Amino acid sequence: MYTLYSMRRSGNCYKVRLALAQLGIAHRLVEIDILKGESHTPEFLAKNPNGQVPLLEVAPGKFLAESNAILWYLAEGTPLLSDDPIERASTLQWMFFEQHALEPNIGASWFWLNLVKGGRELQRHALEDWTEEGYRALRVMEKHLAHQTFLADDHYSIADIALYAYTHVAEQCDFDLARFPAVRRWLERVEAHDSHVAMEWQPAVEAAE
Amino acid sequence: MYTLYSMRRSGNCYKVRLALAQLGIAHRLVEIDILKGESHTPEFLAKNPNGQVPLLEVAPGKFLAESNAILWYLAEGTPLLSDDPIERASTLQWMFFEQHALEPNIGASWFWLNLVKGGRELQRHALEDWTEEGYRALRVMEKHLAHQTFLADDHYSIADIALYAYTHVAEQCDFDLARFPAVRRWLERVEAHDSHVAMEWQPAVEAAE
Repeated sequence: MYTLYSMRRSGNCYKVRLALAQLGIAHRLVEIDILKGESHTPEFLAKNPNGQVPLLEVAPGKFLAESNAILWYLAEGTPLLSDDPIERASTLQWMFFEQHALEPNIGASWFWLNLVKGGRELQRHALEDWTEEGYRALRVMEKHLAHQTFLADDHYSIADIALYAYTHVAEQCDFDLARFPAVRRWLERVEAHDSHVAMEWQPAVEAAE
Repeated sequence: MYTLYSMRRSGNCYKVRLALAQLGIAHRLVEIDILKGESHTPEFLAKNPNGQVPLLEVAPGKFLAESNAILWYLAEGTPLLSDDPIERASTLQWMFFEQHALEPNIGASWFWLNLVKGGRELQRHALEDWTEEGYRALRVMEKHLAHQTFLADDHYSIADIALYAYTHVAEQCDFDLARFPAVRRWLERVEAHDSHVAMEWQPAVEAAE
């Protein structure tokens, strides 16, 4: 059975939990609170020298990092990833877009505004850049989704899971999605997909697990 | 025949040119100077709404963006990408690491210090962050390469191509690689690999094509 090291309120970790749920893959979940330094203990760094979650133990002692690489690994051979070479490349294109255009901006805003006490003040300067670049990413998505049901060639895939994670919390970190009606409709389509589970980032839910 | 839209002095574009050379894939090359706004003309934006190179026309009118997605597409079924599920995931893990830990820092430093006149002054504040985060990425690579011949499970792969692109110019943007002997030896191994081609970013070479 896989073991997933994950922090509940992290969008990157949520991607993997959502894929595991939709694929019906049983797994053991280990909650890691990066805010308490739990991803930088000697034990954790021995598993992932980059000190980040999510981290999936794919075989005894063999660990896989990077949320989108984990998604690809889990989705291969399932309906969440096409067999067609060009569709696969398109899926991967959106997942790389997510990691350098969306996550570093909306993801960073989410982290500092929602998870770190006093984060707005600490990152006041950076937040301006993240907002500008985050809106740029949303405009690219809006243009694409105006003509597409899902991101990669109109099939729900791990590309949608990857970009949904931080887009669906954008309004909780000062982004106004009213300006992006196609993105909003896409969020609803993702949420209506089979076996969707919510991020459940609230501490109350966290404590219950 | 593929058409590659590329800027010679871009590390992201170099990755694709290196893979095409090593795979012996014939292609048409269209030079796009992003500094002259050539990636933001209406014609180019119709091909890639994100306004970036590299861009590969994989079928008539079908364009693939994101350097690492293009690498994956080209390498599938070749010696540059393993058939083993865990090795494939490991390859992708390093490619995602490249796009959020290495390229936004060393790649950004390269761009502003070497391609933009007056870039050092314009980005003085950001350069401090890029240097700190770039060194963090190099430390992760150094730790890994101290025990590995290549990045993903000891086979030369597109992960090496992806991370070589900006690492091999790090010293031209103020990073001291003397502190990373394992990274240096890995750079030499990549350069010794069959059919390696240089970035050839010098204007003289550029003009010759």
